Amino acid sequence: MLINLNPSADVTALKKTLAGLGLWVKPLLNTDGVVQAILVKNHSPKIDRSILSALPGVISVFEQASPHPEVDRWRARPMHLPKTTFSQSSTVIIAGPCSVESANAIDEIASAVAAAGGSALRGGAFKPRTSPYAFSGFGHEALKWMRHAADTNGLDVVTEVMSELEVEHVADAADMLQIGSRNMQNFALLHRAGEAKMPVMLKRGRAATVEEWLMAGEHLYAAGASSVIFCERGIRGFDDSTRNLLDLSAVALLRHHYGLNVVVDPSHACGRRDLIIPLATAAMAAGASGVMVEIHPNPAEALSDAPQALSFKDLERMAVELKLEPKS
Amino acid sequence: MLINLNPSADVTALKKTLAGLGLWVKPLLNTDGVVQAILVKNHSPKIDRSILSALPGVISVFEQASPHPEVDRWRARPMHLPKTTFSQSSTVIIAGPCSVESANAIDEIASAVAAAGGSALRGGAFKPRTSPYAFSGFGHEALKWMRHAADTNGLDVVTEVMSELEVEHVADAADMLQIGSRNMQNFALLHRAGEAKMPVMLKRGRAATVEEWLMAGEHLYAAGASSVIFCERGIRGFDDSTRNLLDLSAVALLRHHYGLNVVVDPSHACGRRDLIIPLATAAMAAGASGVMVEIHPNPAEALSDAPQALSFKDLERMAVELKLEPKS
Amino acid sequence: MLINLNPSADVTALKKTLAGLGLWVKPLLNTDGVVQAILVKNHSPKIDRSILSALPGVISVFEQASPHPEVDRWRARPMHLPKTTFSQSSTVIIAGPCSVESANAIDEIASAVAAAGGSALRGGAFKPRTSPYAFSGFGHEALKWMRHAADTNGLDVVTEVMSELEVEHVADAADMLQIGSRNMQNFALLHRAGEAKMPVMLKRGRAATVEEWLMAGEHLYAAGASSVIFCERGIRGFDDSTRNLLDLSAVALLRHHYGLNVVVDPSHACGRRDLIIPLATAAMAAGASGVMVEIHPNPAEALSDAPQALSFKDLERMAVELKLEPKS
Amino acid sequence: MLINLNPSADVTALKKTLAGLGLWVKPLLNTDGVVQAILVKNHSPKIDRSILSALPGVISVFEQASPHPEVDRWRARPMHLPKTTFSQSSTVIIAGPCSVESANAIDEIASAVAAAGGSALRGGAFKPRTSPYAFSGFGHEALKWMRHAADTNGLDVVTEVMSELEVEHVADAADMLQIGSRNMQNFALLHRAGEAKMPVMLKRGRAATVEEWLMAGEHLYAAGASSVIFCERGIRGFDDSTRNLLDLSAVALLRHHYGLNVVVDPSHACGRRDLIIPLATAAMAAGASGVMVEIHPNPAEALSDAPQALSFKDLERMAVELKLEPKS
Repeated sequence: MLINLNPSADVTALKKTLAGLGLWVKPLLNTDGVVQAILVKNHSPKIDRSILSALPGVISVFEQASPHPEVDRWRARPMHLPKTTFSQSSTVIIAGPCSVESANAIDEIASAVAAAGGSALRGGAFKPRTSPYAFSGFGHEALKWMRHAADTNGLDVVTEVMSELEVEHVADAADMLQIGSRNMQNFALLHRAGEAKMPVMLKRGRAATVEEWLMAGEHLYAAGASSVIFCERGIRGFDDSTRNLLDLSAVALLRHHYGLNVVVDPSHACGRRDLIIPLATAAMAAGASGVMVEIHPNPAEALSDAPQALSFKDLERMAVELKLEPKS
Repeated sequence: MLINLNPSADVTALKKTLAGLGLWVKPLLNTDGVVQAILVKNHSPKIDRSILSALPGVISVFEQASPHPEVDRWRARPMHLPKTTFSQSSTVIIAGPCSVESANAIDEIASAVAAAGGSALRGGAFKPRTSPYAFSGFGHEALKWMRHAADTNGLDVVTEVMSELEVEHVADAADMLQIGSRNMQNFALLHRAGEAKMPVMLKRGRAATVEEWLMAGEHLYAAGASSVIFCERGIRGFDDSTRNLLDLSAVALLRHHYGLNVVVDPSHACGRRDLIIPLATAAMAAGASGVMVEIHPNPAEALSDAPQALSFKDLERMAVELKLEPKS
Repeated sequence: MLINLNPSADVTALKKTLAGLGLWVKPLLNTDGVVQAILVKNHSPKIDRSILSALPGVISVFEQASPHPEVDRWRARPMHLPKTTFSQSSTVIIAGPCSVESANAIDEIASAVAAAGGSALRGGAFKPRTSPYAFSGFGHEALKWMRHAADTNGLDVVTEVMSELEVEHVADAADMLQIGSRNMQNFALLHRAGEAKMPVMLKRGRAATVEEWLMAGEHLYAAGASSVIFCERGIRGFDDSTRNLLDLSAVALLRHHYGLNVVVDPSHACGRRDLIIPLATAAMAAGASGVMVEIHPNPAEALSDAPQALSFKDLERMAVELKLEPKS
Repeated sequence: MLINLNPSADVTALKKTLAGLGLWVKPLLNTDGVVQAILVKNHSPKIDRSILSALPGVISVFEQASPHPEVDRWRARPMHLPKTTFSQSSTVIIAGPCSVESANAIDEIASAVAAAGGSALRGGAFKPRTSPYAFSGFGHEALKWMRHAADTNGLDVVTEVMSELEVEHVADAADMLQIGSRNMQNFALLHRAGEAKMPVMLKRGRAATVEEWLMAGEHLYAAGASSVIFCERGIRGFDDSTRNLLDLSAVALLRHHYGLNVVVDPSHACGRRDLIIPLATAAMAAGASGVMVEIHPNPAEALSDAPQALSFKDLERMAVELKLEPKS
């Protein structure tokens, strides 16, 4: 945003007023070295243009057009799956295994999710893997198992789609498509997933700025998505003390500045069981509409990412901390 | 940590057990391509060596010696200032202006801090400034004003020392010395500050790993500091959507893995008033022992960093959210 | 890598020898606090295991198995397109427009590339765009124009494929498929592109470690790619002084440690014409096998990324600096 | 920079012209949604304001005042030590041990530096160390040894000062003071070092933006420094494949955009002998005025940072690659 000044403006007074409004500013000079305009920096809070226009000494206020009008339209609006509502006051719990391993296992897990007060079942049918030689999921079979387990337990299904060619199949089985962080800017997949005209959970890329993340959401809406839930799962940092760097400032920003619904995935963010519950609680405090966690009946037996899976007991404890009443 | 295996160990079973314990592992091969040892990655939780030594197939467990034995000695111990206790269950509020501007102003502020339930007064007498031409504090005079204001209101004084030559003066006026993030690895200053044999609040450098931060604490203890409180204030990220990137994973790690007392400074982290309270609440949930915030009777008139100062009203609201009883 | 020691080993002497060999080390202790093993850190140079095994006091040396055996097989081997050879001593120039804009324009450009001594024509037919509303290329038509222009001028065609559904068409028109940095871990696309059994240029993701980049190459080989050229184009940094952060340390590492062929794209890395030639020269000095740059007959008229396009004159000047003889 | 437009300006034509000039732009809208101004992004090249003012449709051009006028005054000017000149066309070699270990050792090293065509001797008398328990240099004694060795061999002395209390002593022994990367924003030390009124080499902080680095230089000039040489030594990255991330884009920017003299330290940047020479050559190609490297007569015996020390042979080889004529 740019504030153009009257040549006779009292720049010192104006800068104080702007600081009082919470804005970070950079004065711009004309060729005579006189301040002629004030640039408002990106990390400033949102202030209505009309307030600024009315300040003494201000001629006009210029703004960059929002590049994501469709995302903006959802400001402060709840979003619905059949059994789940994401809103500015919701505490949604989405839980499930990293990989769906068998029909029985997913039934057992779904029942634990429901018992703990969760409303959606997550689980990997197709898994993105750094190595081409690693287990990559049971695919179509797993989708069926997950659908059945969710239906039996009154849950929604959230699952990742990794290929343009699989969008249709995954859309048939899921209530919400998940786009993984590695595919956040896979525009071909975003386009296809949007065309399914259903809710999509969009994980943030590990090096994506908030603006790039919102623009990826805009791609989904432009292609037809009925709603987009943003999911923070940790970004790339310079320190390997934790697996990823959970960015709760971004969560607060999406919630309080943009009015959007955000889910936080503390399992991938920190990769260790003992930090998941504190970070889940912190995520809700920062403004999340819900959390998504990995669970496993017996973490030691999980086929992938075992060290970050919560046990059923841990899940219940987390639900209590997040102040959900466990369903009897 | 490294786990040495017996040639006949059942590696698959062992890997499952380790994953079940929450450990992330890398198998190491001998020249015949056989797994002979398992390396435990840094971002794994702490597991007692005796548990691992007892597993079937394990010959021995090697560990890196902790490079910060003095820091480790403080595990789970409370730390005291005259009026303030930092512990694993405390909710300390430290508040005050970016710069101390006058005797009257700091009196008014101290009284607001006390009223809101805060126990320590922060304030800049000497200010680090990116530009050599910017206001850099009222120095010695400001120290006196702050001491008087704190004493009148039953508060401790926390203030930054920036020069080896000023340690003595600042130590006379303060109950806890603050080392700023730009000086986290200024070893000459750490040495001098440690020699004051008093509590020190050590801000994390913007690009410091958790290990480097702990090592800077070790420098303080080695020189004589009586206790070290770690303060997270946001690290350098790649996105200018927020001013800095608040790393609450590190806070959870210091609290839950190392058992240390951490304070979070959400004012510098996000630089905007509307996100400070959500992030302060999130910090406490993640494991902080307290928060430190900037306040100003009239943010528009602050001589520095005005956009991030809370008003007295905001401070009270924050204290309520953090569940302190305001002292009428 | 891990070096297991004999209980009677002279650890001090051994650490000196290892440092002399250029290795960065961390000693590991057994329960009695005695050094029993030495861990070699990741950023150390490659030393043959047999050298280490022969040192006095060493019992055995353990290593992590390489997770990318197919990539490793290409160590120090040249890779060929019909008109272009990438090798440890080549100075390949790949040039062309950001977007292919018309049959005539690409003919004119191809002739300039050939005249300057370039051997391959690059150009976007399908363009990844942050905004869904931005121009995204002329698609199939553009592929035909580019093929014709390359054939007329004796050049190879290098062009990006963004969708699994387009691999076949792009493979028909191109001599080398390009995978963009946003798709570096789009495993579905890597799989499809590998199945075309042809050379692939793999751009590094903006937040990808060198190991993740090599693993993405492994996906390509595992699916059938005939060769993989790695392309460094700048990673995400914390400073917006330049558009991206060109990582020439990684180029030196791929060339001198892994013996791989790397191409550097200084146009995307720095995004400004005046730095492209110095950085192209630096890239070759660091160990690149060639450079890829954007050019345009009239940069002011380019439909995308105009500020980083070189003019034909600039291209010639760069070719001279890189010490190619211009072809008459 | 901001370009204010005439209401009747042909915005499309103007954007093309600006792109043709190499500028990255963001249009700003007034309340009617009409483009009224164009913001030029930071990572654009420098264009004289008068050129922009003369474009059709432009009313006025606003600019941020440079916050570092003293640094700017040195644009394209050479800087001198008694035996060394840094300029836009120099190839200075500064070499020496990480730590100065004895009078004899430094004599031997100085003679090797001179023989290879180097003009300045570097060496640590006071060493910044992450651990309080690590060897931290021979101090005052080492300064004397270094001065003697340099004088005998016709070299300048460059050495780090870490404490305000040592500036005077170090200034007596050195021809150029070095400020280490951990102290880049230690303003008390910058002030003291500037007061010595001599040349200073300012290493870039590991998380410092180019602007922050220039501002630290401004602190030095404001306090009295006679000249400031900027030294790039690698920044903090997210990948431990190399020790630090050498930012040659920043070197190109300082040289080609700001006209400043930059030295590159590839030893600290990559931390491995086999990459130092390629990166030194790349640094010169990118625009450095010289390089600074660590050498040791017998790297295995070095008291610190041994893995990154070059042997005397390596130094000669590097000097040849950088195209200096070895003396005698």
